[in-house]
Amino acid sequence: MDGMSTDTKKITMLGLGAMGAAVARSWLSAGYELTVWNRTASRAEPLAAEGAKAAASAAEAVAASPLVVVCLLDDASVEEALADADLTGKDLVNLTTGTPEQARARAAWAAGRGAARYLDGGIMAVPPMIGVPESGGYVFYSGSGELFEEAQKALSVPAGARYVGEDPGSAALHDVALLSAMTGMFAGVSHAFALMRGTDVPPSGFAALLVEWLTAMAGYTHGVAAQLESGDYTLGVTSNLAMMVQGNATLLRTAEERGVSAELITPFTALMERRLADGHPDEGTTGVIDLLRS
Amino acid sequence: MDGMSTDTKKITMLGLGAMGAAVARSWLSAGYELTVWNRTASRAEPLAAEGAKAAASAAEAVAASPLVVVCLLDDASVEEALADADLTGKDLVNLTTGTPEQARARAAWAAGRGAARYLDGGIMAVPPMIGVPESGGYVFYSGSGELFEEAQKALSVPAGARYVGEDPGSAALHDVALLSAMTGMFAGVSHAFALMRGTDVPPSGFAALLVEWLTAMAGYTHGVAAQLESGDYTLGVTSNLAMMVQGNATLLRTAEERGVSAELITPFTALMERRLADGHPDEGTTGVIDLLRS
Repeated sequence: MDGMSTDTKKITMLGLGAMGAAVARSWLSAGYELTVWNRTASRAEPLAAEGAKAAASAAEAVAASPLVVVCLLDDASVEEALADADLTGKDLVNLTTGTPEQARARAAWAAGRGAARYLDGGIMAVPPMIGVPESGGYVFYSGSGELFEEAQKALSVPAGARYVGEDPGSAALHDVALLSAMTGMFAGVSHAFALMRGTDVPPSGFAALLVEWLTAMAGYTHGVAAQLESGDYTLGVTSNLAMMVQGNATLLRTAEERGVSAELITPFTALMERRLADGHPDEGTTGVIDLLRS
Repeated sequence: MDGMSTDTKKITMLGLGAMGAAVARSWLSAGYELTVWNRTASRAEPLAAEGAKAAASAAEAVAASPLVVVCLLDDASVEEALADADLTGKDLVNLTTGTPEQARARAAWAAGRGAARYLDGGIMAVPPMIGVPESGGYVFYSGSGELFEEAQKALSVPAGARYVGEDPGSAALHDVALLSAMTGMFAGVSHAFALMRGTDVPPSGFAALLVEWLTAMAGYTHGVAAQLESGDYTLGVTSNLAMMVQGNATLLRTAEERGVSAELITPFTALMERRLADGHPDEGTTGVIDLLRS
């Protein structure tokens, strides 16, 4: 159970979907001794052909290595797959997508099953980025700092490894927060392309303008952080809420002119109006964050 | 009325709000002979002290220069301010925020009033970025290509000048489309910060992760454009709609765990679900754009 028990050259991988298989393959390529298991056994065959040991059961796979990595469909699949496995003394790294609460509960469950240490991971990459350092993909890890330090070399093979604290839920929270922000950005991008339809502007030309603009405007995020830390939501504001709310009327009217539903932008413009009506004309948009707390 | 009638060293500027004043000041600093007017006359005083001529009326200001630039509160203010002015033979550059239809109607109105040529502008900058080339701010222009070419040197003084076509509404459409996309991104950023509240992660540290992530993910826009141009919405998809919709459940469940309203992200997740239900599991999110057309 001490730090020395983890032989980081020997890894078991459970779950060989697109992501799990990419992660497993990166370890194989780097010379790790890999044991794999997947519920649909045929998915293990290509990896077995490349040198992995394909275990007949999850329990057998778990028994093969001190470090067990799981990358399954969802949190319930983790419990199901490990039902018959002996986790005593094992180090568990859970790359399965889930919520922060699921990660915390799974960490406690693993400890209750005798596991040595637990790390939860949130993968900020798509499968083709795994094992390709220059892709910029990375994985958030949280939970046992000791395990992270010890296994860091192995964990850094599939993608950059970033540790975000002892709370097992922290990695999932970081993952979900970034994906949620991206969801908002993609919503805005979709609305923008919809507005440009029916013009003779080629989408690729417009995309170049859009990427340049969004990249420049992403820096606004630093200003929001500074305002949250100071508690002064007017700090450094160059375009205030009163002006922005007036500008929003033009955005909504243009959507109407163009026959585009504004449903992807109205929730934010409505909250900006509410914050303005609450008496904050000189702020930026940071006050909207307060309105999201239930 | 021919090209030679525009003496681009002589400019009239109507409207001295924060943006108008910044634009006017940039021309003054660059040695242009500037006549200014503002409904509230006191706002012209600082510029007059710096060398601008302050006209007693909008009509007088218009009479002073062949090139007349307006930057007023809204489209109605333009008609009102110019009501008594003789626009005969004048070149009009309208930097007032408005919709594409308002720009087209204003161009027709100016022609009807005898104006020589018309350009509409959409300013992609906040006032502190004006006259600061390294800020990256710029202005979309559309309408008379001849006027743009002739006045380009003057128009490039406040901020980079980008011409986007003869349709007078094109600049406003580009402006609104980029601002709408930004609105979506800010909505996502607000949701992300709300999720992180109550943790010990400092907002500034999280902002650094967020900016890096959004900057990397903005490139997704190029893929959307390629799909729109090919008509094949599965082109180059690495994370398909079926997987993303499943991931969305984790985003929404996490918001609930954290006591954060998901209202800023649910409109997009709902449209993704609708597109998936319509039978497009292998696409990315581009099909959502089709659903926005009314």
